[in-house]
Amino acid sequence: MLSKNTLKFIKSLQQKKFRKQENAFFVEGTKNVTELLNSDFEISHLLYTEKFALEHSSMLKKFKGESYLVNQNTLQAAGSFQTNDSALAVAKIKENHLPKISSKDLVLALDDVRDPGNLGTIIRIADWYGIRNIICSNESADFYNPKVLNSSMGSFTRVNVSYTDLYEYLLQVNSPIFGAFLEGENIHQSQYSPSGVIVMGNESNGISDQIGKLVTQRITIPRFGDAESLNVAIATAIICDNFRRS
Amino acid sequence: MLSKNTLKFIKSLQQKKFRKQENAFFVEGTKNVTELLNSDFEISHLLYTEKFALEHSSMLKKFKGESYLVNQNTLQAAGSFQTNDSALAVAKIKENHLPKISSKDLVLALDDVRDPGNLGTIIRIADWYGIRNIICSNESADFYNPKVLNSSMGSFTRVNVSYTDLYEYLLQVNSPIFGAFLEGENIHQSQYSPSGVIVMGNESNGISDQIGKLVTQRITIPRFGDAESLNVAIATAIICDNFRRS
Repeated sequence: MLSKNTLKFIKSLQQKKFRKQENAFFVEGTKNVTELLNSDFEISHLLYTEKFALEHSSMLKKFKGESYLVNQNTLQAAGSFQTNDSALAVAKIKENHLPKISSKDLVLALDDVRDPGNLGTIIRIADWYGIRNIICSNESADFYNPKVLNSSMGSFTRVNVSYTDLYEYLLQVNSPIFGAFLEGENIHQSQYSPSGVIVMGNESNGISDQIGKLVTQRITIPRFGDAESLNVAIATAIICDNFRRS
Repeated sequence: MLSKNTLKFIKSLQQKKFRKQENAFFVEGTKNVTELLNSDFEISHLLYTEKFALEHSSMLKKFKGESYLVNQNTLQAAGSFQTNDSALAVAKIKENHLPKISSKDLVLALDDVRDPGNLGTIIRIADWYGIRNIICSNESADFYNPKVLNSSMGSFTRVNVSYTDLYEYLLQVNSPIFGAFLEGENIHQSQYSPSGVIVMGNESNGISDQIGKLVTQRITIPRFGDAESLNVAIATAIICDNFRRS
């Protein structure tokens, strides 16, 4: 049976401080839990309902960690979802791994994207467009925040998200560095080879001056109406789509 | 001074039932309130802080409705924002106005987009891409929900969003009707004249079978990686961007 202490431990993982201390995180809901079970993350605890067990019996059989058949109320008490009638899983945080960028790779760099929903959505977009690496400034939203993982819709298992001093990192990049600005080159009027680093900026302030100086190509999404700006995840999607045209 | 009854009245507008009964809605935050003040919406109440008054004194002078200088706590008690140090405004709901579509217009149709954040983001995207009309099925999120208006970032004042029986409406459309499906025509491989109706489907179920039968051209956003799907607002942005290429 699930002990009160385990429940308390899981709940604590909603806070970054405890995730760091315990080196653990959790995800909720069918999509994220099944993707986690199919990934190389080390899962320590699995909480599931009868409904989940019926629909995913073969997955459950293969699972070797601690598992608990619970009811919906327990899932909701442990996690962050208002309703969850399927599952929740706790896994070990992976080491921060900065990728070596080859000249053929297309990489996203996030300069202080703070909103967890935006980061999660950007991870899903990267996964759609076959982008395997996202480099985040240290001030960006935490990858292991439940809101990030949940809004990635399982894509968090396929995209490597790492944290670093973005300025120092970009200083060493030899590929072109693209940055979205309001007065850059119209992305509809150029063709891009799908390689290099695309930098996306903070929700309120855009790309910082320091990082902006490292951008080798300023690009712009053309506007046809009157909105002042686009949400950063929306802009990321449009830019990725333009880079993947051939 | 702001009475308890007025405060209670504003708070009640978070619920659709009371918005309908009172024929009123509210918006919060500098961006949305200033856009509302610059629009043709009929504003009945304006609550603002000293900070807002200092930054927008000329707007305040021009305003003829009931206005109240309040503190941050009152704003937060009246509205839905956790922090709001600027303003909140109450305005009259506009009549539902179904547009006549000319053969040159590009229009969005939403088949049960239920999430208020998605609808708000789609309104902002429409405004960016110069799309003046969004037709929603009656089951779609309510335009006057504070979450919709807030995530539109002021674009709700420039885009006409109307509700109807979408099937009946589309039956009478003579322009091409495009619909996003997983097995449609690759949007990177075709050129589109920017006219017609683009139908976007429900977050979980996509476009319904009934509406799907009226779609004259099935289109698809090409996938380069492994994500199963894209969020509906993200997909809308990518499709609009492709339609505006010339």
